[in-house]
Amino acid sequence: MKIYFSGSISGGREHEAIYQHLVAHLQAQGQHVLSAHVADPVALEAEKDLPPREVFERDSNWVRACEAMIAEVSTPSLGVGYEYGLAVQLGKPVLCVYRSGVRLSKMITGNPAPNLTVAAYSDLTELVERIDAFLHNLT
Amino acid sequence: MKIYFSGSISGGREHEAIYQHLVAHLQAQGQHVLSAHVADPVALEAEKDLPPREVFERDSNWVRACEAMIAEVSTPSLGVGYEYGLAVQLGKPVLCVYRSGVRLSKMITGNPAPNLTVAAYSDLTELVERIDAFLHNLT
Repeated sequence: MKIYFSGSISGGREHEAIYQHLVAHLQAQGQHVLSAHVADPVALEAEKDLPPREVFERDSNWVRACEAMIAEVSTPSLGVGYEYGLAVQLGKPVLCVYRSGVRLSKMITGNPAPNLTVAAYSDLTELVERIDAFLHNLT
Repeated sequence: MKIYFSGSISGGREHEAIYQHLVAHLQAQGQHVLSAHVADPVALEAEKDLPPREVFERDSNWVRACEAMIAEVSTPSLGVGYEYGLAVQLGKPVLCVYRSGVRLSKMITGNPAPNLTVAAYSDLTELVERIDAFLHNLT
């Protein structure tokens, strides 16, 4: 399945290790993660000098092309907020996961869209359970 | 004019004084700022216990009702990213302002939408100039 992974880039990388675990888990299942570079500091460094317009068009097209989005929303991020909104509006199944205890925007927790799932996790085991349950419900 | 002001709430309040200056400037011009509470810590405190769904519906409806959006995007924020995307997609004139030197998401700087203006400012005088120029172009 083509999955768009959304995570903070400019907003801060404090959850980078979690992004890596999440994307590695999806790839180990044979999922096609369109935006795997978001979890990869080397790939991100290499695209730092790409024109903003090019990144915007590529990422927007990937959101349109994906079959599901998984967004890690523990770190506040303009790009993640934008992408999550676009995917929900396009009717994609969207999972927003966040670390228990984080104060999350009501523009996510209050969104009643039927294609949106919001779930907290307290450790990596629970994160993986949330993801697997979400993907299982899609099939 | 009905203006939606978008600023970070859950994402962090480090630019609160700037939000206050911005909203006060709009109100002094006679503009109707639908979301003036975003600049007001007392009003925000009072709505902390509102159900997320209620806040989401109210704010989404205000974005639909506004004639223009001004978003202060210096602080990474899921809610601001969501609201900015919604307003651009609805064809509203949107101004995103940010403090010079801030690393801004390419999902904003790379967005080619003709109804979007992105502008940096280095002090409050320049912030006000950016806002006045944006509003002047709408009339």
